[in-house]
Amino acid sequence: MNVGFVGLGAMGREMAGQLLAAGHRVQVWNRSPEPVRELVERGALAAGSLAEALGNEVVVSMLADDAAVESLLLDEALLATAGAAVHVNMATVSPALARRAAELHARHGLGYVAAPVLGRTDVAAAGNLTILAAGESSMIDRVAPLFDAMGRATRRLGDQPQLANIAKISANFMLVSAIEAFAEASALAEAGGLASEELLAILTNTILPGPVYAGYGAMIAERRYEPAGFRLALGLKDVGLALDAGAEAGVPLPFADVLRTALTESVAHGDGGLDLAALGERARRRAGLST
Amino acid sequence: MNVGFVGLGAMGREMAGQLLAAGHRVQVWNRSPEPVRELVERGALAAGSLAEALGNEVVVSMLADDAAVESLLLDEALLATAGAAVHVNMATVSPALARRAAELHARHGLGYVAAPVLGRTDVAAAGNLTILAAGESSMIDRVAPLFDAMGRATRRLGDQPQLANIAKISANFMLVSAIEAFAEASALAEAGGLASEELLAILTNTILPGPVYAGYGAMIAERRYEPAGFRLALGLKDVGLALDAGAEAGVPLPFADVLRTALTESVAHGDGGLDLAALGERARRRAGLST
Amino acid sequence: MNVGFVGLGAMGREMAGQLLAAGHRVQVWNRSPEPVRELVERGALAAGSLAEALGNEVVVSMLADDAAVESLLLDEALLATAGAAVHVNMATVSPALARRAAELHARHGLGYVAAPVLGRTDVAAAGNLTILAAGESSMIDRVAPLFDAMGRATRRLGDQPQLANIAKISANFMLVSAIEAFAEASALAEAGGLASEELLAILTNTILPGPVYAGYGAMIAERRYEPAGFRLALGLKDVGLALDAGAEAGVPLPFADVLRTALTESVAHGDGGLDLAALGERARRRAGLST
Amino acid sequence: MNVGFVGLGAMGREMAGQLLAAGHRVQVWNRSPEPVRELVERGALAAGSLAEALGNEVVVSMLADDAAVESLLLDEALLATAGAAVHVNMATVSPALARRAAELHARHGLGYVAAPVLGRTDVAAAGNLTILAAGESSMIDRVAPLFDAMGRATRRLGDQPQLANIAKISANFMLVSAIEAFAEASALAEAGGLASEELLAILTNTILPGPVYAGYGAMIAERRYEPAGFRLALGLKDVGLALDAGAEAGVPLPFADVLRTALTESVAHGDGGLDLAALGERARRRAGLST
Repeated sequence: MNVGFVGLGAMGREMAGQLLAAGHRVQVWNRSPEPVRELVERGALAAGSLAEALGNEVVVSMLADDAAVESLLLDEALLATAGAAVHVNMATVSPALARRAAELHARHGLGYVAAPVLGRTDVAAAGNLTILAAGESSMIDRVAPLFDAMGRATRRLGDQPQLANIAKISANFMLVSAIEAFAEASALAEAGGLASEELLAILTNTILPGPVYAGYGAMIAERRYEPAGFRLALGLKDVGLALDAGAEAGVPLPFADVLRTALTESVAHGDGGLDLAALGERARRRAGLST
Repeated sequence: MNVGFVGLGAMGREMAGQLLAAGHRVQVWNRSPEPVRELVERGALAAGSLAEALGNEVVVSMLADDAAVESLLLDEALLATAGAAVHVNMATVSPALARRAAELHARHGLGYVAAPVLGRTDVAAAGNLTILAAGESSMIDRVAPLFDAMGRATRRLGDQPQLANIAKISANFMLVSAIEAFAEASALAEAGGLASEELLAILTNTILPGPVYAGYGAMIAERRYEPAGFRLALGLKDVGLALDAGAEAGVPLPFADVLRTALTESVAHGDGGLDLAALGERARRRAGLST
Repeated sequence: MNVGFVGLGAMGREMAGQLLAAGHRVQVWNRSPEPVRELVERGALAAGSLAEALGNEVVVSMLADDAAVESLLLDEALLATAGAAVHVNMATVSPALARRAAELHARHGLGYVAAPVLGRTDVAAAGNLTILAAGESSMIDRVAPLFDAMGRATRRLGDQPQLANIAKISANFMLVSAIEAFAEASALAEAGGLASEELLAILTNTILPGPVYAGYGAMIAERRYEPAGFRLALGLKDVGLALDAGAEAGVPLPFADVLRTALTESVAHGDGGLDLAALGERARRRAGLST
Repeated sequence: MNVGFVGLGAMGREMAGQLLAAGHRVQVWNRSPEPVRELVERGALAAGSLAEALGNEVVVSMLADDAAVESLLLDEALLATAGAAVHVNMATVSPALARRAAELHARHGLGYVAAPVLGRTDVAAAGNLTILAAGESSMIDRVAPLFDAMGRATRRLGDQPQLANIAKISANFMLVSAIEAFAEASALAEAGGLASEELLAILTNTILPGPVYAGYGAMIAERRYEPAGFRLALGLKDVGLALDAGAEAGVPLPFADVLRTALTESVAHGDGGLDLAALGERARRRAGLST
């Protein structure tokens, strides 16, 4: 398939690489040139402009946030001349943006599929992402081969694109909640003389198995916050998306409120570039355990 | 082994039953007579008094809370005449109580082992509990055959009994946090048009597998809060234990604060006898989804 | 002075009326025509277009929120042709908007003064507002006669316009916090058998005198939430401004988080059009007291 | 009147002094001898034992907390031999304790009046306390001359002693909430470049006048946390009383939850002996402003 790929950040790079590996023709565009060169070495074509990238049959985008999508891709003039049939937006953006984008694309005769992903860069590099896809069924069918190249499973969530974004936002909220819960429990354990590792072993061997508790939990127990698999500042952005979605839909989210306070505090302490696990350090700090 | 067993609530009954099944001689005592009759039918002996139960080589107790342990078993006069060598307290009580109890028992020449358990009544009935044990090593060795009869795994957490209570309280705090997180996420999903079941399937198949999310999550998704595997009012008690332990140790627990507010609200709405999953109903109510 | 006045909502109407009463020449513009007619009857001139209103020596605006200011007044083309020397923005908007607006106005050779106000419509109708003014000193001097007509006191907060917005947002956050605190205390009192009025009388006669506790407190005690002096939905908007400002500056605001949860819940229950005092009803509802 | 006075802490000392100044015969008792000597110099008699102090017509107690009252004064043997007709408990204790105490006293033919006070030590030294009194009307009449000596106003809250404790606890919760709100607003202002003093001047001159905002606010603005007029650790105790009362009555208190988290954090940082205003330092710390 001829694919235009927009946004070659840490995730986008790996995903485009998987498309190339699966034999698709991928024309890439990125704001800064460095990642473009890297992908060209792996077999991609460089688009001379964003408009050129949008001339492909399918456009896949993996941009940083709502603002980036808005300023780069939701441009009336650009969409009016786009040759693409379908735009697949795989970034973590707001349901509100998804609604606006779908409407705007429809007005210009373009399809819009929301397809955010679960999995970090290492998972993306292995082609093992879980893809949460929503949009018109026929369009999802059409881009399914791309999903198969990038992920190990695609979950279809219905006709309305924003449903995929709601799922993704909810999942990330659950993830950060799990980390915060262990951060607090870990501080409680340490203050009482029980090693955090011991508590973690109990939990992961009984009621709370799985990669989130085991992975972030170990980082918290070891006070190891680098390298950042999931940057704390990004977690704050995602919790903000949940709170905005809650505000829009009239759903109070008291845990998300606590998370925002906690993450804001961590960023204020200069921990924004560390892993989300650094929530553990903030819990220790508040308990006077960090000196 | 000759065992005195004090406290035949829903959990105690099953645990005493497992001891009998393993061939131990069990003399039971309970405030109300009904469960005693039931256990006697299964082969137990009835103790004529609490003091008589404490005449056995080992005493196992499974009482409701700190107050029950305090009023029944931390009586100087009673302990002065107790013939038992070791008291194994398997209830979910505070670390503060464990410290007081250990000290008091030591003064009377008795051993004290804290051994709270992970698992609900069905797990207890199958002898599959996880036992968190702390206390003097030689005493834990001595009662290990009892643990083997009641559980499938014993984790030893050190010499100081309260460490086991800290672990248990932390685990329950993590459990209730996981339920609240899904309760909120579920309300967010429903309000946005995404079925709660769909969100749950995504989570349990990816980042958050395991029995807690799958079990309580399904109850929340189906709005099914009975029968209560874990009564909501008990969850409030356990969160209170975490907050008290945090207050004692100087550890702020903002998630636990949210949980207490949420659970108190649920109890005020008459949901105290329902399963912890009824936290989902409160999230729906706050979002105006329950009418 | 020749004044263009943009935005004739409940507050703007009264403020423009005070300018007329003080003898200024006021040309008004509003999106809907009804309030324009009303002001013309009181002596104002109707502007044929927004651009015409901006042809006056000074423009005063009192719009609903950031979005309204952004879409109506921060238009490059409009500002390029504006004849006004100074734009006085008296609405409650974000510090971020104030910064952007000041920069944009400066680029077009226009002055920008931020001058949000303390006081509700009755206070505005009596010309008794407190005006929080920030911007270049010479410009504030120039519009001081207008402030004298609308308010009984002007507090000058420095050269940077956004400082006035920070002050206003902080004040409203304090206001809503005071209401929530009494809402909770009132529910606690009632549940324990102490009349809310009694508690209120104690507080206002001792540690917490003043119009906020007396006024909103009485509404909460009497469960009287209409007419809305300060609409609950507006309170949610203002708390959102505080949280956004906090997020931007790295300041965690846990009370504001609680307020957002509480207000969102109230809006979800259909109380958005009631007075802020309806926070009291939500506290009662959560405590099971409202049936 | 012949008065036994039990508990000569910072408050009790001043209150007993006022009784002496008004001409009453006061026999004092205190756990440590130093304050007894001081009061004797001012004209008091020293009680040889607690039982002797309870031989007076009226006993006034001003002890630290529930535990002190429980262990010293709710002793069956002691009450059985007490000659006093009425016990006036002026400490800040829980409604639950008040109920138990009233019942116990009644059983021994003694009256029990709850009469907690509003005002700090300087107010007590001037005889200007506000006294919140509840209990049987005839008993309050009887001790009214004592109240007149210690306070400038007595508010009668009904027959049930615990009502006075509910009022006192609610008032202190409101007080700490006001301080926390300003602590957060102050951090927001400072981070945005607006001096905390400026914000405070605006508030106290407009919507939030009164001693609480002016007094604690100035301490926060000046980062002056000593001498402690109201020790932070005591504030944590009082918020705990509110939360316990809420838990008992089924009233969620989300602001009190935030306060407990904040105060616990402050105590963990070694600020327990500072004034409540040190909540401002914690807000600064969380925002990264304190380094």
